[in-house]
Amino acid sequence: MRLPVSSASPMRLSVTERAAMRAVLHVCTTCRGIEPGPDDPTGDDRRPGALLLEALAGAVPDAVELRGVECLSACSQGCSVALTGPGKWSYVYGRLTLEDAADILSGAAAYAASADGIVPWRERPAIFRKQSLARIPPLTIPQE
Amino acid sequence: MRLPVSSASPMRLSVTERAAMRAVLHVCTTCRGIEPGPDDPTGDDRRPGALLLEALAGAVPDAVELRGVECLSACSQGCSVALTGPGKWSYVYGRLTLEDAADILSGAAAYAASADGIVPWRERPAIFRKQSLARIPPLTIPQE
Repeated sequence: MRLPVSSASPMRLSVTERAAMRAVLHVCTTCRGIEPGPDDPTGDDRRPGALLLEALAGAVPDAVELRGVECLSACSQGCSVALTGPGKWSYVYGRLTLEDAADILSGAAAYAASADGIVPWRERPAIFRKQSLARIPPLTIPQE
Repeated sequence: MRLPVSSASPMRLSVTERAAMRAVLHVCTTCRGIEPGPDDPTGDDRRPGALLLEALAGAVPDAVELRGVECLSACSQGCSVALTGPGKWSYVYGRLTLEDAADILSGAAAYAASADGIVPWRERPAIFRKQSLARIPPLTIPQE
C-alpha cells in the first residue's frame, strides 16, 4: 500500500479541498517501537510506524486526512502521531502501538469535529489523555 | 511585565500584521522545572516557565513574535517552547532553563528566516538539536 508522505514543501490545495479538510492525522512512518523487538518471524521488516500507518488506513473517518510523514522528531517515544487542522491547536501523541489504531481514529474524528482542536477531556480516548507529548496553539487567522 | 497569553480562540490579524509575522515563539508559562527546586530565597514564586518568558522578552528578534501560552502539554519535560509560522513545520523543545534564553532566541531567528521552518542541522543551537520533543508538518496552503 502506498500512502502520501509529507515533504518539507506543503502542497497547495483548492478552496474546495481545504473546506473538506477538517483535520490531518500525521503518522510517523520511521518510528521504531519503544523497545527493540525480536526479528519478526513473518519476515516483515517494516518499521512499527509504517505498520501503524497501514493499520489506520482501513477506517479513516470522512473528516480526517491520513498522511504518513518521515519523522516527527519524537524518536525516543515509540510510535507517534500528530493531529493538525486549520485554526486548531495541534497535538502530538506517543508510545502508541497497533492495538491503539481504533482509539487513534476515534480520537481523530472527535478532533476533526471540534472547532479549535480542544476536545472535552472525558471525550478523549485514554491514549490521548495520558500519552500527549506536546500541543501547539493555532496560527492566528488573517482577516481576509 | 504583562505579555499576551494565547487563548483557545486565535485572534484575527490584519494582512499587514500577518506579513510581518514570520514566526511565533510560544513559551509555556505554567511549566515547572524538571526537578522541584527549593523555595526561591528572593520570594519569587512564579513558575519557571513564566520566568523564562520574561527572560526571553528582552531581546526578541524582529521577525519573531513572543507569546506566553498556558500549557504546551509537555509537563514532564521541564520548561518548553514551541515555534510555529505560516507554511512552516512546527517544533517543540523541552528541558529548557533560563540559561538557554539567548540560544532560544537565536534559534527562533534562524527559524523565522527559513522558508519552511527546517533550519540546517549545523545552524541550530545545541538545545534545538538535542532537546526536540516533537515536530509537526505545516498545514497545506490553500490556493487563494
